[in-house]
Amino acid sequence: MAAPAATAAELEAQGFRPLDEASLVAYIRATPALAASLGGRVDALEVKEVGDGNLNFVYIVLSEAGSVVVKQALPYIRCEGDSWPMTRERAYFEASALQEHGRLCPDHVPEVYHFDRAMSLIGMRYIKPPHIILRKGLIAGVQYPLLAEHMAEYMARTLFFTSLLYNSTTDHKKRVAQYCGNVELCRLTEQVVFSDPYMVSKFNHWTSPFLDKDAESVREDDGLKLEIAELKSIFIERAQSLIHGDLHTGSIMVTTDSTQVIDPEFAFYGPMGYDIGAFLGNLILAYFAQDGHADQANDRKDYKEWILKTIEESWNLFQQKFVGLWNKHKVGNGEAYLPAIYNNPELLSVAQKKYMTSLFHDSLGFGSAKMIRRIVGIAHVEDFDSIEDASKRAPCERRALDCAKAILKGRRQFESIEQVIAHVRSITHD
Amino acid sequence: MAAPAATAAELEAQGFRPLDEASLVAYIRATPALAASLGGRVDALEVKEVGDGNLNFVYIVLSEAGSVVVKQALPYIRCEGDSWPMTRERAYFEASALQEHGRLCPDHVPEVYHFDRAMSLIGMRYIKPPHIILRKGLIAGVQYPLLAEHMAEYMARTLFFTSLLYNSTTDHKKRVAQYCGNVELCRLTEQVVFSDPYMVSKFNHWTSPFLDKDAESVREDDGLKLEIAELKSIFIERAQSLIHGDLHTGSIMVTTDSTQVIDPEFAFYGPMGYDIGAFLGNLILAYFAQDGHADQANDRKDYKEWILKTIEESWNLFQQKFVGLWNKHKVGNGEAYLPAIYNNPELLSVAQKKYMTSLFHDSLGFGSAKMIRRIVGIAHVEDFDSIEDASKRAPCERRALDCAKAILKGRRQFESIEQVIAHVRSITHD
Repeated sequence: MAAPAATAAELEAQGFRPLDEASLVAYIRATPALAASLGGRVDALEVKEVGDGNLNFVYIVLSEAGSVVVKQALPYIRCEGDSWPMTRERAYFEASALQEHGRLCPDHVPEVYHFDRAMSLIGMRYIKPPHIILRKGLIAGVQYPLLAEHMAEYMARTLFFTSLLYNSTTDHKKRVAQYCGNVELCRLTEQVVFSDPYMVSKFNHWTSPFLDKDAESVREDDGLKLEIAELKSIFIERAQSLIHGDLHTGSIMVTTDSTQVIDPEFAFYGPMGYDIGAFLGNLILAYFAQDGHADQANDRKDYKEWILKTIEESWNLFQQKFVGLWNKHKVGNGEAYLPAIYNNPELLSVAQKKYMTSLFHDSLGFGSAKMIRRIVGIAHVEDFDSIEDASKRAPCERRALDCAKAILKGRRQFESIEQVIAHVRSITHD
Repeated sequence: MAAPAATAAELEAQGFRPLDEASLVAYIRATPALAASLGGRVDALEVKEVGDGNLNFVYIVLSEAGSVVVKQALPYIRCEGDSWPMTRERAYFEASALQEHGRLCPDHVPEVYHFDRAMSLIGMRYIKPPHIILRKGLIAGVQYPLLAEHMAEYMARTLFFTSLLYNSTTDHKKRVAQYCGNVELCRLTEQVVFSDPYMVSKFNHWTSPFLDKDAESVREDDGLKLEIAELKSIFIERAQSLIHGDLHTGSIMVTTDSTQVIDPEFAFYGPMGYDIGAFLGNLILAYFAQDGHADQANDRKDYKEWILKTIEESWNLFQQKFVGLWNKHKVGNGEAYLPAIYNNPELLSVAQKKYMTSLFHDSLGFGSAKMIRRIVGIAHVEDFDSIEDASKRAPCERRALDCAKAILKGRRQFESIEQVIAHVRSITHD
């Protein structure tokens, strides 16, 4: 993947040392911004390691008077038993994106209290219980009545305000250049989303033997390969907005009245549709997983309807909010649609429809690609993995895969999210 | 346009002083790389100022044993009587692009002998007589039998070898970030190509009163405005290759057996189609100008046919060479079309056709936009301006404008360059 991992001595020379619970406490005591987040009460701290140890250390730190989450990036990622060197600089981009998106959408992004670039360490707001990872809530069958509204707001604000619809080309290019530095994470996405699932790769796996033929058919589908090449180009070449870059349902923490987006370490200037697609695609995965979670107590039928309604509302509210921001800020620094050119409401409205249709098709393409890679690629989703019986899991995954393939190839035929949902529903019922 | 121009004192503090003939000679004598280009014979130099004084000083320097061109960027551009501050840093991007494109295509790009960033000064190979600017040759009705072959080679090599078809994403993003710095020149293009012609702007002019209605109809053509918005987005957002950025027929010097591309100060990572379109669009302008240059001695009919043939061959040879490079380098650092995925010749061939069709439509779009702005925007072309009788010039310009509007709006319907040429021809004959 990349250059070999630095040795411990090299890391130390760079000012980096991985913290454990004891050294973390010393670090906090020596760091005013972190001490302040704990109300200055740093004598008796409670520390809990909650990271999965695959990419980062994540500690929850509590005092009598406050709390903080401390996240430290490690110089590698562990994935499926392999260890890949991976730049710690991703912490810089994560902190930068949290700060920028947090400024634009403070209700749905945790505040950054402290960032230490040499240590690859971020101190940020602790998102307290009863917040849980959305994916776990979707598996448990919990409805989040405000999820669509909140995510539409988050996506509309972060994507609009970092696009050329709002910013001058000068500001835009400056930020694009900055985030070009996060290329190692972009390359990881390129590999695991746009390449590996479509070729023989030791990293791929699937529910075998049930999906052997399905995985093979992905690798032999020329139509799919033509579409994925186009999406891969857009992903790398098109600097449209500062995107989160990994906006699946594992990057979102929720309660019934709060939605918080975390972990933007893949952030860069890329296509807006990649974020929207990630969110919608992962909801569709959750939908297809429900049959595997159904039992006599709960057939999950109502819950499946709620997921579909959430998908529908997420796109429709996003679209409405995004166009609303566009109309509100049509006179400003943005140079993409100058008022002197798009000088009548009908023309602007047609231009907006064209823009949103193109964004819709991008979102469907990227969303489908994200679904496919979760079934036949390296990293799967707990939605399916938690269905223990493989003979029960496989048909759920197959429906999701078939759905994704059809949407990816036929995305330009869909004119509304309702049509997409009708398609999703049609696959379930056969 | 930008920040106010620096004062003379500020410029001096930056290490910049505009050279005149006397100080240029002193500078050359003190600069080994320039002295060497003159064979070390720097005692009796012949210096000729050949720049138009609008953007840069350009000096030809000759000794008994050698020659060099010295180009110095000024901190402003003069255009139509107005003076705009314009970063001297464009000299850095021009030198960088000359070096990079020169490495990739040495036959058609002058060597850089010396670059002085503080002085915004480039010393490069003197492109000797009988080389003339291609545009002047096109006005004079001179045929260049190798032009299509040479330009196809130049475009194929510079665009292919700086794209993701050849380079790793890591190298690509590094260079994209570097050229984001040339944003002031990008903004100038945005304004003069993608904005001003479609709105009321004091910078616009046209052959009045003949084309008053035509200019107005551009400003009121909603279909055109929808298309130009899309092209503008692609221009700013899509970092496909290191493009020249200003590849019109005034940036090319020719003899019957040599073709040299100069002046890439607008270079940045942008859409390939912008370069291809600039070249083809300016040839179409030259075609429509021929009726204004016809006289009893020469009806220019044969010459018009030669221009059309050159357009046809330029695209077809470009396509052939570009796909040839792709096939030759399909196993390499490029990650866009991995051999393990595009693993049979038929699939790769279909993928290439899809890629080239999309590039063709981009080129037609950008080429048309470049034509339109030369008729109703700020900077016109000598092809038309040299037709002194306005009543004779206006119908030529109108045909070019009508042709460009139709191609811009209908570009996706064209399947081959032959169809485009049939369309160009149909407009001439009505």
